[in-house]
Amino acid sequence: MTIASSRRAIGAAVWVISLTACGTGSAPPKLANPPVVSTPITVQHAVIPAPSSIVMATGQSFLIDSSTTITVDAPGAQRVEAQHVADQLAALLWAPAERARRAALAAPSGTMQLTLDPAHVELAEEGYRLDVTSTGVRILAATPAGLFYATQSLRQLLPVSVEYPAAAQRVLRVNATTIRDLPRYEWRGAMLDVARHFLPLRDVEHFVDLMALYKLNRLHLHLADDQGWRIEIVSRPNLTAVGGSTQVGGGAGGYYSQREYRELVAYAAARFVTIIPEIDMPGHTNAALASYAALNCDNTARPLYTGTNVGFSSFCVESDSTYALVSDVVRELKALSPGGYFHMGGDEVKTLTPTQYRGFVDRVQGIATANNMRLIGWADIAPARLSPTTIVQHWSKDSLALHVARGGKVIASPGSKTYLDMKYDNATTLGLSWAGRIEVKDVYDWDPTLVTGATPESLLGVEAPLWSETVTKIADAEFLAFPRLAAIAEVGWSERNARAWETFRFRLAAHGPRLQALGVNFYRSPQIPWP
Amino acid sequence: MTIASSRRAIGAAVWVISLTACGTGSAPPKLANPPVVSTPITVQHAVIPAPSSIVMATGQSFLIDSSTTITVDAPGAQRVEAQHVADQLAALLWAPAERARRAALAAPSGTMQLTLDPAHVELAEEGYRLDVTSTGVRILAATPAGLFYATQSLRQLLPVSVEYPAAAQRVLRVNATTIRDLPRYEWRGAMLDVARHFLPLRDVEHFVDLMALYKLNRLHLHLADDQGWRIEIVSRPNLTAVGGSTQVGGGAGGYYSQREYRELVAYAAARFVTIIPEIDMPGHTNAALASYAALNCDNTARPLYTGTNVGFSSFCVESDSTYALVSDVVRELKALSPGGYFHMGGDEVKTLTPTQYRGFVDRVQGIATANNMRLIGWADIAPARLSPTTIVQHWSKDSLALHVARGGKVIASPGSKTYLDMKYDNATTLGLSWAGRIEVKDVYDWDPTLVTGATPESLLGVEAPLWSETVTKIADAEFLAFPRLAAIAEVGWSERNARAWETFRFRLAAHGPRLQALGVNFYRSPQIPWP
Repeated sequence: MTIASSRRAIGAAVWVISLTACGTGSAPPKLANPPVVSTPITVQHAVIPAPSSIVMATGQSFLIDSSTTITVDAPGAQRVEAQHVADQLAALLWAPAERARRAALAAPSGTMQLTLDPAHVELAEEGYRLDVTSTGVRILAATPAGLFYATQSLRQLLPVSVEYPAAAQRVLRVNATTIRDLPRYEWRGAMLDVARHFLPLRDVEHFVDLMALYKLNRLHLHLADDQGWRIEIVSRPNLTAVGGSTQVGGGAGGYYSQREYRELVAYAAARFVTIIPEIDMPGHTNAALASYAALNCDNTARPLYTGTNVGFSSFCVESDSTYALVSDVVRELKALSPGGYFHMGGDEVKTLTPTQYRGFVDRVQGIATANNMRLIGWADIAPARLSPTTIVQHWSKDSLALHVARGGKVIASPGSKTYLDMKYDNATTLGLSWAGRIEVKDVYDWDPTLVTGATPESLLGVEAPLWSETVTKIADAEFLAFPRLAAIAEVGWSERNARAWETFRFRLAAHGPRLQALGVNFYRSPQIPWP
Repeated sequence: MTIASSRRAIGAAVWVISLTACGTGSAPPKLANPPVVSTPITVQHAVIPAPSSIVMATGQSFLIDSSTTITVDAPGAQRVEAQHVADQLAALLWAPAERARRAALAAPSGTMQLTLDPAHVELAEEGYRLDVTSTGVRILAATPAGLFYATQSLRQLLPVSVEYPAAAQRVLRVNATTIRDLPRYEWRGAMLDVARHFLPLRDVEHFVDLMALYKLNRLHLHLADDQGWRIEIVSRPNLTAVGGSTQVGGGAGGYYSQREYRELVAYAAARFVTIIPEIDMPGHTNAALASYAALNCDNTARPLYTGTNVGFSSFCVESDSTYALVSDVVRELKALSPGGYFHMGGDEVKTLTPTQYRGFVDRVQGIATANNMRLIGWADIAPARLSPTTIVQHWSKDSLALHVARGGKVIASPGSKTYLDMKYDNATTLGLSWAGRIEVKDVYDWDPTLVTGATPESLLGVEAPLWSETVTKIADAEFLAFPRLAAIAEVGWSERNARAWETFRFRLAAHGPRLQALGVNFYRSPQIPWP
């Protein structure tokens, strides 16, 4: 299904998209039963990312009234997870006392039915069908993730008052709508640099909430850099006691205890977001070098560092102590990471010979493999003898083609398009500009297939990193991430021919009040016709 | 000094105010040395609340450079407090590592001098002089509060990058400026209803930060209502164990431990904000009535309540148990409240006779007096036999004239003008509208002297209450409070003839980027020409 044309309708937050034909994306998974469309059909919606297919009927709607309840149909093995998705939908719609009242209703009227059926293989790992009619809401998916994404689309079809749980006179009415939806890429991510400036757990959880709204599914945490080590490693207490004790600009820094990190992993998993832990090495390691003298070739601990230079630090790659520490770290992260990924960083190493560097990467890959972790690294690592199962993350001119040639997978994170810490324009106070200034349209009009050296088969997906040299609090992160991250989400989820700037900017405009309801400190880009 | 005319200058955030003459406000404290003004002088500033006098020189400025330091001159008794103000200014300007570097400088260049001299009685309790020249910044006040307010004005004269502590290439330059400033009213407050929906300590502290930016000095906390009791009373543990266990809509509720409350009181005091604790009684007490059966005339504990009706609950005013509890509460609050105020609420009592009600108020006043607390109540309490030292807070049609007649003081909080929980306009989803819809200009154009029955002598000041029926999180509170609270701050601080909507709206516009830098989820009123 392609969006062939669009025009703005009367009213600030209403627009019309004419769906005229079913098309094919670049190798999308096929839907088993594509809807029969009598062309043209007019639709009004603000769903981001744009679904594979959305058809809205005029003059019909479903009102979530005082006797509406949510029911779940799922096989035993997945019933708990499906029920948990239903519970989250209920929590969106109703306050706790109201949920309890509805749970006790003898005669529910309109119903919202969530069905999980693994036999619907055409819906794959994350796809769903959502049917809103005048009598109810039906959701079908083959996985809990698919159910969850259907509820996020439903949420975006509901008025903004759904985001104000205690708003007076809330009328939750949904236009009759049929959505069939599948993501383009399996990896749709964001990265937070909690090393240069630390962010408390609660703030990261809030960020996960916002990611889930846009069907993003990977949160990469940059957990260690020159300025700080942010994850407790029980066998190596100095990493946090010393290495976690400060940050850029000085001051207290901070770190996540393993208990907190587990809580975060579970919180994210409930929203179908996998936490990807990165411990950057062999460079960007001053915090560790300050914590343990033995990691330095001269056996002398480095002083803590609170500046923002890069490239000056490195593990002693000739020392067994280094690999003993890496092994301890990877082993403990494995126990914390049901996702099974370990990101080793590997970028911007300026003090080693190419041979030393490649040898180090090889050994870390071996440690990851020994711990049954799938290795990821910035694409600087591509010249090493990587396994094809290792994933490289492209960020600048690098050697990713080497990895593509060996059949490896690539995550697209080019700095000039996806780095959320770049300023929007010349007037932006926050952020940096070494990779350019990136307005919302610059992100949106980019496509992962434009990355030089990547092939369609090699592209696992996209990720937008947010480095924190200038970011001291979650409000700063939100300002830089939103609305650009919504654009990245659509780039990662929607087929290229299913998205167009001229529809996106109006859909995004309608998200302004929703983001404000969620308390998001978003940038009011002049490119977007905010209401 | 009066602002006689204004016009907008070229550029979105620049405007010109012509100061033409020295005038007199409605009984303002007089400055000993009014500046000699060669009329007209053009000034460009965005200071809120508008200072009594501000003169900016063209072509001169002070650059806070790498060797600028802050020095303090204060008598021994006040040196610690004055130094603490200087430390807060330093924390605004420089990250911790940078502060440490400057503290070790052998040869500081430009200086910022804070002088506290109690002999300058013309500056009273909260006034200050601020002189920025090309060679430095000089601040003079008679109290630590005055020093602090001078630093808040200086902050607002600095570019918005001052609010981004880690921004790259921050240039902190201040135009040469002379300010002499005194507040109109001693009571400039806001109220948060943490009873209907609870707010965590950290969020309230953030709110205090924002109040301080606008020189507000009273934070009234509505700590108990039908839906929740939010302050630990050690001698009455059920009040929080039971009464604090839920809130509007159900769910967990919450409360402040005495340790947390002390932390909040100290945090606010460091920003010259006094916390005013309110325990609403005899009505609005269902949470207490659910906690202790003996507070009910039928000796039966009430069920917890999570709705939003009012007027149905009351302490048993004939029972000694009631006064025993009130005594315990007031005694413990006294120990937590260096401000010495106790707010008894007293509003919307619908189940008692007038005689019963007045008798109850009399006894609570006696308990407050016995505990050396100054009593405050909503002006509903005025018909009781109040002491002239008791303060009444006007909110609707009430009997405040009775209290004015006995020489008592009044806080002006009319619902139709100052209630921050009222919607801005018909399009506002959050909030209520029973007292009207209140846009920024409605607040700004109002004046406390317009309150029927209040006299200039009786007016202690203004306060803007934010009731939380619809407010579930700090982002909601921020949306409703800002920018209206900035308008209230100017109403409370600036003489009536020193303020005008046409200058305020341009000054407020320039605060948009500053509020965004601070992560404030403020309402983008269409009345304000935001940049």
